Amino acid sequence: MAAVAGFLFARGANVVASDQHSTDPTGGTFFMRMAFVGGGEGLGPAFAAQVGEPFAMDWTYWPDVRPKRMAVLVSREDHCLLDLLWRRRRGELAAEVPLVISNHPDHAADVLAFGVRYEVVPVAGPEAKPAAEARMLELLTAAQPDLVVLARFMQILSGDFLARVGAPVVNIHHSFLPAFAGADPYARALERGVKIVGATAHFVTEALDAGPIIDQDVVRVSHRDDVAALTRLGRDVERQVLARAVAAVLEDRVLVHEGHTVVF
Amino acid sequence: MAAVAGFLFARGANVVASDQHSTDPTGGTFFMRMAFVGGGEGLGPAFAAQVGEPFAMDWTYWPDVRPKRMAVLVSREDHCLLDLLWRRRRGELAAEVPLVISNHPDHAADVLAFGVRYEVVPVAGPEAKPAAEARMLELLTAAQPDLVVLARFMQILSGDFLARVGAPVVNIHHSFLPAFAGADPYARALERGVKIVGATAHFVTEALDAGPIIDQDVVRVSHRDDVAALTRLGRDVERQVLARAVAAVLEDRVLVHEGHTVVF
Amino acid sequence: MAAVAGFLFARGANVVASDQHSTDPTGGTFFMRMAFVGGGEGLGPAFAAQVGEPFAMDWTYWPDVRPKRMAVLVSREDHCLLDLLWRRRRGELAAEVPLVISNHPDHAADVLAFGVRYEVVPVAGPEAKPAAEARMLELLTAAQPDLVVLARFMQILSGDFLARVGAPVVNIHHSFLPAFAGADPYARALERGVKIVGATAHFVTEALDAGPIIDQDVVRVSHRDDVAALTRLGRDVERQVLARAVAAVLEDRVLVHEGHTVVF
Amino acid sequence: MAAVAGFLFARGANVVASDQHSTDPTGGTFFMRMAFVGGGEGLGPAFAAQVGEPFAMDWTYWPDVRPKRMAVLVSREDHCLLDLLWRRRRGELAAEVPLVISNHPDHAADVLAFGVRYEVVPVAGPEAKPAAEARMLELLTAAQPDLVVLARFMQILSGDFLARVGAPVVNIHHSFLPAFAGADPYARALERGVKIVGATAHFVTEALDAGPIIDQDVVRVSHRDDVAALTRLGRDVERQVLARAVAAVLEDRVLVHEGHTVVF
Repeated sequence: MAAVAGFLFARGANVVASDQHSTDPTGGTFFMRMAFVGGGEGLGPAFAAQVGEPFAMDWTYWPDVRPKRMAVLVSREDHCLLDLLWRRRRGELAAEVPLVISNHPDHAADVLAFGVRYEVVPVAGPEAKPAAEARMLELLTAAQPDLVVLARFMQILSGDFLARVGAPVVNIHHSFLPAFAGADPYARALERGVKIVGATAHFVTEALDAGPIIDQDVVRVSHRDDVAALTRLGRDVERQVLARAVAAVLEDRVLVHEGHTVVF
Repeated sequence: MAAVAGFLFARGANVVASDQHSTDPTGGTFFMRMAFVGGGEGLGPAFAAQVGEPFAMDWTYWPDVRPKRMAVLVSREDHCLLDLLWRRRRGELAAEVPLVISNHPDHAADVLAFGVRYEVVPVAGPEAKPAAEARMLELLTAAQPDLVVLARFMQILSGDFLARVGAPVVNIHHSFLPAFAGADPYARALERGVKIVGATAHFVTEALDAGPIIDQDVVRVSHRDDVAALTRLGRDVERQVLARAVAAVLEDRVLVHEGHTVVF
Repeated sequence: MAAVAGFLFARGANVVASDQHSTDPTGGTFFMRMAFVGGGEGLGPAFAAQVGEPFAMDWTYWPDVRPKRMAVLVSREDHCLLDLLWRRRRGELAAEVPLVISNHPDHAADVLAFGVRYEVVPVAGPEAKPAAEARMLELLTAAQPDLVVLARFMQILSGDFLARVGAPVVNIHHSFLPAFAGADPYARALERGVKIVGATAHFVTEALDAGPIIDQDVVRVSHRDDVAALTRLGRDVERQVLARAVAAVLEDRVLVHEGHTVVF
Repeated sequence: MAAVAGFLFARGANVVASDQHSTDPTGGTFFMRMAFVGGGEGLGPAFAAQVGEPFAMDWTYWPDVRPKRMAVLVSREDHCLLDLLWRRRRGELAAEVPLVISNHPDHAADVLAFGVRYEVVPVAGPEAKPAAEARMLELLTAAQPDLVVLARFMQILSGDFLARVGAPVVNIHHSFLPAFAGADPYARALERGVKIVGATAHFVTEALDAGPIIDQDVVRVSHRDDVAALTRLGRDVERQVLARAVAAVLEDRVLVHEGHTVVF
């Protein structure tokens, strides 16, 4: 911390926000995020030479003037997709959206109204999935996203796809993980008789619904709520949690370490 | 509903609170709770003859003047126990507490200060459990509880004990069930990296942590929180959820049906 | 209650949902809502003759097949407007929307994309307000709304307008009323240094921000949040609270009595 | 930040937790808290000479080995008092409690059971208040508290008392300030028909209920809740908010600046 703060001070940068976390103060891993203004030309290479390399840090430097590129994958449910596009239009999410891909044509008009490209990649059964993934990879490679968001995308992505997509993938799962991982979480929540349902935004890994959790939230339900009611109440939580998680990732506030996230 | 309301009206009773729920309006199970003042002598038998039996209802009638009797079982953690005793002293819980049983002597002074009997039934290893359960059943049988509360009682009760205890048993589990059923939920929550931890009050059945859920609540946590912090934050949720659930049971607001609860 | 339940039973109606509230069990005002299926032809007049008039009830009967008509007034902020239109398209709000009126042209494309009529009624200064109100009354009278929603409409409506609009008017105020009634609530919340901000949906009366409250909710904030951040965080609460309140009004779950609401 | 971090690094201290806040990155006030282990002998004077004075900082240094001293003032309601004493016993609050003062004798047995001194200073009407304040100041001066907590103390303290008490005073107010400042907030909340009630922990200043806010929280209520119910529901929020605020003050996580708090 002293080295980073000293480096920025010496270059005349003003720190706007600063967060630290240490897994163990007497020798664990130390995490830090600093947002600053100023610092002059060539800051990245100078930091590498003077601080990053001498201290053997894992580090990234992201200039604000370059908004991140976010691709969105979606199936039939539109609430998460529209909420992300609307927040971006409102200036809440600092991202470009070069591409939305869906396995259904339903959202074309809505997405185009936001001035965003919409590609349909249908998946006609399990045997068609490799070809669909190949087509999506082709589209994503061309779009060069810094982040891929699964905004209620109901296809399971293969390990091969994840290895080749070249950007972190964030999913919204419609349960309070680890409860009700997998299919039909609202039906299973009703079956178990829970009094609260939730949603979880997490990075996607090959293990289903087991990637590092970024954010979660819940809503109270009662014996009066059937699956349709849980689905409706859950939608509000899903879009809220996904938006918070995406904002955090876009602002480089999420660090991943050994299957866990540090969210500054 | 018409029959019950008509019966009470005919006897000059005033309905104070009334709740209904129907699993399916065209032929499911119908649940109703009515709180009323007045109604005169012999109301129970009259209801049985005129309404309960003709309509083949499952029903109970509980006069307010007879507070329910609540026994509490507890291990080392005192927060749920003391919270229940405080609330009862303040008049928040309409119950008599004839007995607190613990497998540890630690809480004797605290419990006695509330004017409540405290019995220690130690459990020296698995082979001593049947004898301990027998002793607890003996104490409980004498205390005649309408409700038994496990206020962080860390021993698993046998199916035989549950069959013979003669009163519903409510437990507080320190996780958001069905996530982290079983032992050490906070450690497992940390291991999974969840951003929220919770607590669940449920009726105890022979299947571990799988009985009908009465109430749940949660608290937000972060990467900064270790097991000690989760435990501390969770404590506040545990005592709050257990107190709400116990109040609901004492006020006959909880109906159980096919593994689920209706909580009016 | 006996009379209503008996009437419905006699006509073969099945009660789907039922709620009661009494301000004072020994003689206050009694509120009731019953949702039912069946009951046959001429149910309204029969109820009037057999129950409503004999018991001198204030009552309404609304057949589900006739969705309520909801007009929306909006200024520059689009989040509440779009959220209502999305929810209606998804089937969460059972309403027709015959008309959106704004004092700004900004939302025309968005509203028309939902197939809804959009009328601009500009207000060029205080002296132009009576004419603007007259024009809005003309449009509203033609649209025949059962409910008028102010979805962040930043003009104060006159008592004369409210008297003549002929439908209840629901407003979303961007504070936790009664704190910060009036203009610029987020700036004043920052000035006071609160740790939570909120939103309030209420019926509009001539007294500014003093009408009966339907719903409220809050979000936690911190010293890091400036007015822009409070505004952004508050937006999510505003649209959520307004949607819940509008749904309740559309489903006839809100009764008003002496400046208060009963929300079933 | 660079200077502080560099100083600690040079002395071999390990930073355990670190927070910063700046009111304006290009020249506002900068706030920082660093918790560290190690650093050796004479750290305070060295810091003053090498960092504090050269940079003209306002700073404090508090060694963990010296727990803060907390005095508590209380009237008839015991829930906040008992919660604080119980949390201290559980090790959640790192404080010594040399003294509890009340204007009522009610809590003597409870407080003594925690091994804490209990002094009754009755206030027999307004004209007796100066004498009562003088007696309280005498007791407090002898007890040398670092913090005075008003745990539902229902007497208004004079400006003279506050000027002479020599420690920050934290109060819990049973409303969501600035709504319902002053007396009887729950009755006024019911009168207004709010759907949420809250509690606010704040530093006490001469202006009634207008001091810097440390923490707030809320609970949802409904038309069913009368003043007794609001009071009961509010109690849980009051003790929770006060405990969080007191913990933050004891851990030096609360900085006050121009009527606002920064809570790290």
